[in-house]
Amino acid sequence: MISVHLESGRVEVQRRSVPRIAPGFARIRLIAAGICSTDLELQRGYYGFRGTPGHEFVGEVVAVSSEGGDEVVRDSAPAGDMDRAQRHERPARLIACPTEWIGQRVAGEINLACGICEWCRRGLGRHCPTRKVLGIVGHAGAFQEFLTLPIRNLRRVPRSIPDEHAVFIEPIAAACEILDQVAMTKGTRAAVLGDGKLGLLIAQVLHASGAEVHLLGRHRHKLKIADRAGIATEIMRKKLPRSAYPVVVDATGSADGLGAAIAMCEPRGTVVMKSTVHGLVGIDAAPVIVNEITLVGSRCGRFEPAIKLLASGKVRVGDLIAEEFSLDRAPEAFALAGTKGILKVLLRPPG
Amino acid sequence: MISVHLESGRVEVQRRSVPRIAPGFARIRLIAAGICSTDLELQRGYYGFRGTPGHEFVGEVVAVSSEGGDEVVRDSAPAGDMDRAQRHERPARLIACPTEWIGQRVAGEINLACGICEWCRRGLGRHCPTRKVLGIVGHAGAFQEFLTLPIRNLRRVPRSIPDEHAVFIEPIAAACEILDQVAMTKGTRAAVLGDGKLGLLIAQVLHASGAEVHLLGRHRHKLKIADRAGIATEIMRKKLPRSAYPVVVDATGSADGLGAAIAMCEPRGTVVMKSTVHGLVGIDAAPVIVNEITLVGSRCGRFEPAIKLLASGKVRVGDLIAEEFSLDRAPEAFALAGTKGILKVLLRPPG
Repeated sequence: MISVHLESGRVEVQRRSVPRIAPGFARIRLIAAGICSTDLELQRGYYGFRGTPGHEFVGEVVAVSSEGGDEVVRDSAPAGDMDRAQRHERPARLIACPTEWIGQRVAGEINLACGICEWCRRGLGRHCPTRKVLGIVGHAGAFQEFLTLPIRNLRRVPRSIPDEHAVFIEPIAAACEILDQVAMTKGTRAAVLGDGKLGLLIAQVLHASGAEVHLLGRHRHKLKIADRAGIATEIMRKKLPRSAYPVVVDATGSADGLGAAIAMCEPRGTVVMKSTVHGLVGIDAAPVIVNEITLVGSRCGRFEPAIKLLASGKVRVGDLIAEEFSLDRAPEAFALAGTKGILKVLLRPPG
Repeated sequence: MISVHLESGRVEVQRRSVPRIAPGFARIRLIAAGICSTDLELQRGYYGFRGTPGHEFVGEVVAVSSEGGDEVVRDSAPAGDMDRAQRHERPARLIACPTEWIGQRVAGEINLACGICEWCRRGLGRHCPTRKVLGIVGHAGAFQEFLTLPIRNLRRVPRSIPDEHAVFIEPIAAACEILDQVAMTKGTRAAVLGDGKLGLLIAQVLHASGAEVHLLGRHRHKLKIADRAGIATEIMRKKLPRSAYPVVVDATGSADGLGAAIAMCEPRGTVVMKSTVHGLVGIDAAPVIVNEITLVGSRCGRFEPAIKLLASGKVRVGDLIAEEFSLDRAPEAFALAGTKGILKVLLRPPG
């Protein structure tokens, strides 16, 4: 099968054998995947990454392995693509329990948690200290024809959601995480800074939840996407409104974004930190303390509300797709995705 | 009367006329005041300050002025100290309403709020955008024989609290503010970084509220004060525990404190920012976002819980007093208060 490999800044397309699945895992045939800013950071070598990235995907389950270790593959599974040793070592035979997943179209929670620690028991496997993370930490990602994930990470994708929209479930979940962390009621005035992919999704998610959203960005054509969803938008100028919003989300992706968000936030208000910026970010602590502002770091979210929002049509992602590439053209896809101001670049298996 | 004046880094003792009181205000004879780190920052010229500092005090109400503008003074008020014009312009005569304050021993909320804006109506006059702040912004402070405050800012001090302890009501209120901002239940594990005056008060306040407090500091003699209050203490080493506490309070007063607090905080935990540090503080945003940590800026608090705690004996401040000076020795007092590691320096009127 074809697999994308990152190493020392290079994007390579490699031929690999189809991955085997450990007990409790599923093998998933990729349908489509999205290149995220994090993937571009991995390319630049953050976290010392070397391997196959990709964590935004939709795919079809083709094989599962029970907790006992028995593997079940679908009739149509491309056994010819597996290497010989693998086929002979663990012969496929039918078992009852997890087979319902086979043939399902799925998205997958990206954190592979231990399932038994205190965090996992609290339903916060996303913070499990020994977790692996799909395509980011210790587990090969989705930019290949077949990927693997624990069965418990799988979420069925309803038929009403087209493949290329389902790729957005993961980033929409990250946007929904804000609603799990910050108390917002109908009509809460919220400013979103940044009209990149994540900013546009966050603005739509908060808007769908009933907040009165104001999106500030630098690109007219991107702001128009939010306009069409009924969101108030504005070109970001040097002089931003001060102490004006009870909730401000920094999705600028830039080191200056946090300071701007703090200045725009009302006393006792909340700034949501959604910009992954590496290295030290300089903030002026005085306004945070004097105005008693709360800063909330926010990362991945639960998939359920994201799937619901996408299925309801309240969050529209069609406009966010810039271009699609076949996996074997991954170097071009990464180059385009790394272009300043580009929206979502998708990858699909060849053929 | 004697008044302390800060200008261009100098601490001067000046003779002034007793301040007049506007409608709705009280004149208070100083009994004792405390020098706070903020006063030392004002001396260094922060906020472009020039004037009389002081916001931690206990005093006796000697005169009040009704909302209509009639002034009532106490028989024993030192009218001889007032300048002639003042005595003649507005003759004192007795009225009924606010006189109950006269003779009362009081502490005073330091924010002079407008009383009518949205923040004031929400009970958050501490964030009134047009507020003045006693001894900090636009209103002369407590380091003088007589000060003034709105009558509504006054809080009676119970007899059981000695004068030199009552001076701590304001900083204890600032410590109590944490309990208003962060949900803590009995047994919540909380680390406090910094064994300065504020750190020692915060540790005691959280301990009194039922939290399991761990105070980390650099000075054995200061940590002993917390030890005696039954708080677990530890000398702060370079290698701090990582992701170990659901609540971490940075009261180090140093620019490094926030980063240390973030590293010590559990995923989904809360870091309380109590260190007023000027200029930019460099923080690594990545762990805040990855671990979804909440940073809460925290400043002044309500006086009521502070007075209650002090009266109950659950927070002990006797050990926190380093030395007392007469107001006319304010330059010496400021010099001592500015010495690294010194505890609370008090000022009292001469005689």
